[in-house]
Amino acid sequence: MPYVSERGTIMPASPIRRLVPLANVAKEKGVKVYHLNIGQPDVPTPREGIAALESIDRSILEYSPSEGLLSLRQKLCQYYKKFSIDVDVDDIIVTTGGSEAVLFAFMACLDPGDEIIVPEPAYANYMAFAISAGAKIITVPSSIDEGFALPPVEKFEELITSRTKGILICNPNNPTGYLYTMKEMLQIRDLVKKHDLFLFSDEVYREFCYTGAPYISAFHLPDIENQVVLIDSVSKRYNECGIRIGALITKHKQLKQNVMKFCQARLSPPLLGQIVAEASIDTSSEYMLATYNEYVERRKFLIDEINKIPGCYSPIPMGAFYTVARLPVDDADKFCEWCLRDFQYEGKTVFMAPASGFYTTPGMGRDEVRIAYMLEKPELAVAMKVLSEALKAYPGRTLCN
Amino acid sequence: MPYVSERGTIMPASPIRRLVPLANVAKEKGVKVYHLNIGQPDVPTPREGIAALESIDRSILEYSPSEGLLSLRQKLCQYYKKFSIDVDVDDIIVTTGGSEAVLFAFMACLDPGDEIIVPEPAYANYMAFAISAGAKIITVPSSIDEGFALPPVEKFEELITSRTKGILICNPNNPTGYLYTMKEMLQIRDLVKKHDLFLFSDEVYREFCYTGAPYISAFHLPDIENQVVLIDSVSKRYNECGIRIGALITKHKQLKQNVMKFCQARLSPPLLGQIVAEASIDTSSEYMLATYNEYVERRKFLIDEINKIPGCYSPIPMGAFYTVARLPVDDADKFCEWCLRDFQYEGKTVFMAPASGFYTTPGMGRDEVRIAYMLEKPELAVAMKVLSEALKAYPGRTLCN
Repeated sequence: MPYVSERGTIMPASPIRRLVPLANVAKEKGVKVYHLNIGQPDVPTPREGIAALESIDRSILEYSPSEGLLSLRQKLCQYYKKFSIDVDVDDIIVTTGGSEAVLFAFMACLDPGDEIIVPEPAYANYMAFAISAGAKIITVPSSIDEGFALPPVEKFEELITSRTKGILICNPNNPTGYLYTMKEMLQIRDLVKKHDLFLFSDEVYREFCYTGAPYISAFHLPDIENQVVLIDSVSKRYNECGIRIGALITKHKQLKQNVMKFCQARLSPPLLGQIVAEASIDTSSEYMLATYNEYVERRKFLIDEINKIPGCYSPIPMGAFYTVARLPVDDADKFCEWCLRDFQYEGKTVFMAPASGFYTTPGMGRDEVRIAYMLEKPELAVAMKVLSEALKAYPGRTLCN
Repeated sequence: MPYVSERGTIMPASPIRRLVPLANVAKEKGVKVYHLNIGQPDVPTPREGIAALESIDRSILEYSPSEGLLSLRQKLCQYYKKFSIDVDVDDIIVTTGGSEAVLFAFMACLDPGDEIIVPEPAYANYMAFAISAGAKIITVPSSIDEGFALPPVEKFEELITSRTKGILICNPNNPTGYLYTMKEMLQIRDLVKKHDLFLFSDEVYREFCYTGAPYISAFHLPDIENQVVLIDSVSKRYNECGIRIGALITKHKQLKQNVMKFCQARLSPPLLGQIVAEASIDTSSEYMLATYNEYVERRKFLIDEINKIPGCYSPIPMGAFYTVARLPVDDADKFCEWCLRDFQYEGKTVFMAPASGFYTTPGMGRDEVRIAYMLEKPELAVAMKVLSEALKAYPGRTLCN
C-alpha cells in the first residue's frame, strides 16, 4: 500500500473536533453532552437569509465568479464602511469560509520554509493551514495571568528572521476573547512597517466586543494598508457557519492577482451561501443587538460560574464568544477525554476543547480549556454544575479536597 | 511592500477563466459572446434539488460534520452501487466540489517534491493543486492523431522515479472526451500495482459515456482497492456546479485519517449544497436520460460542424462534454484572445479555451482548443458559423485561402 504524506501525518487533529468520536459514543449510551467545544451559535440565522433560499428564483445553480458575486462584494463594502474600514469592491475576494481565506492568504504570501509569528494560544487551524502551505508558525506565548494581553513586542522582534513574512493576529481573539488595545495595535503596526511584513488580521468576531473598548481593525492602522490581509467570515456574525462564506481583503495588487489564481483553480465559492450571506447583511439592527445582548449575558454568567468553582480561573473575555479557563487538573487533554468517556453526572457530561491544541509551545495550556458560550443560560448553568462535579470526581485533580 | 509567494507566482492562470476579462470587455461593447470555454451546463438543475431549498425547514444554517452529512454519504453509497462501485459510507468524504477532493488527495498523499504522472492534455487545475501541495505533475503526451488514447504504458514506466507517488487519470476525460478501454485500464492497474502507487481517478463525468463502450471505474480494477483515490462531484451530472459538492473516496485507512485532518481544518463542506445534492440524487431517470440525450445530440452536431470547417479537426469524444480540436492557426492562445478582443461577426464572437493550458510540455497543443458543448444546438450552430468566419479573418491562419 502506498504511503501517505508526511505533511498529513504531522497535521494536528483539530482540538475542537478531535474528541467528537468520544462524544458520539457518549450520546449513543444515552448521555446528554453539553457542547462547550465549538463555536456553533444556537441563535437563529437571520430570517432574511433563510427567506432568500425559500424564494430562490433560479433554474440553474451555476458557478459564480471565482472572486464571488459582485452584488455580495458591493454589500460587504458598505458593511465595512460602518466600521470605518475603507475598502473597494475589487479589494474583496469571497472565499469558502474564513478557512479558505486563511489558506489562500498563506498560499499566496508564503513559500515553504517561510515563517509567520503568532501570539498563542491561537486558533488551532492556523497551524493546519500553515502546514498545508509548508510554512512555519512561530508562536509567542501570552499568559492567562496577564489576561492574554499582547506579549511584549520585543518578544516578536527577537523571533524575526530572514524567513519571516508576516504577523498574524485574531482580534477579538479566538480562543481567549482578548481585544487588542490601540497601544498594542500600534506596536504591531510599527513592527510590521519596520520589517516590511504582512499583517494577517482575522477579524471575524468584530461584532462581538463587550467592554466599550474600541474595535481596531488592521485597516485602521496608518501607513501599512498595502501590508494588511484581512480575514473575514459571515459565519459567526449571522449564525450561519454552514454556508461557508468568508472573505480575503487586501489592497496589495500583486497579492490579489496571486490569490485569484488559487480562487480560479477551485472555480468558485458556494453560490447558495453567497445568496444567504448577501441577504443576511440586510438583517435588522434589532437582530444584531439581540444577539449581542444574549452573548453579553452569557459571558457574564459563564465567567462568574467558572470563577466560583474551586481552583478554576478565567479572565474576563472582552470579545468573541470563548474563554480560556484554567482548571485544577493534571492534564486538560486527559480531563476532557475522561469527561466524555468515563464520567456522567445525572446522565450528563461536558465537551470542552483542551487548550493545549491552541499552543505550539510544549507544555503550555496543559491545565487550560477553551469554553465556548453557545448555550442558553439555563443550559450553561447545568453544564457548569456538571463541570464542577466532574472536577470533584476526576482522579487527576490537582486540588486537595 | 512585502513580496508575495513564488508559489503563487508560478501558479498558472486557469486556461478556462484567464480570458474572462477580455470577454467582459467584449460584452460591454455589446458583442454577444458564445461561451465554449467552460463546462457550465445550461440544462436546468433537477427540480428536486431546488425544491429542497424552497422547502428548507431549518432555523440555523449550522456547520455540518467535517466528513459531510451522513444522509448524503449514505445516498452516495447507493448511487455508486448502480455503477458497481462497492464502497462503504465510511469510505466517502464529502468535499467542497471535486476541486477540494483533488487538493486534499494531493495534500494527504504527496509531500513537496513528490511526483505524479498524468497523461496530457489534462484538466489544468490538477497542475494548480499540485503546485499548492508543492508536488510535481509529470506529463505523458497523448496525441490528437491517436484520438487521445492512453499513451503506451512504457512511457509512464520510463518516468517513474523514487519520488513517484501516483498516476492520475480523468475518465471520461476532460478535456479530450476520451474514455479509457478495459485494456488501457488494466495496463494502468498493473503499473500501479507493480510500483505500489496511488491511482487518482477523476470520474466526475461517468454519467456521460456515449459510445456504448463500458465506463470502467478505478474501483472496478482487481486487487488495487487500497491504492485508489476516487474524485467525484455532483456538479456536472446534476448541473449544479455552483453548490460546490464533491467527494473523495478511498479505502486506504491511513489516507482517510490524513484527509480528515484537512477536512477538520476547514471545518465543514457547504451545508446548503449538501442538502441540494442529496435531493438531486433522487432525480428521475427521465431527467438523467433527457440530459444525456441532449448531450448526445450536441456532440454529434458539434463534431460534424467542426470537421466541416476547412483545416479543423476533432476526434469524436466518447464521453464528458468537451472536445479538443485542432484549428488552422499559428497559436491558439493568440487566436482565442483575438476572437474576444479584435473580432466580431454580425456582433458575435466565440470564447474558447486554448489547449496549451492543458499541456505542460512546451509547444504542445499550440494549434488546439478545448470546446465545451454547453449550448443548445441552434446556438452551437451560430457559434460554429462565427468560428469559421473568425478563422477566415484571423491574420495568423495557417491555411491558404
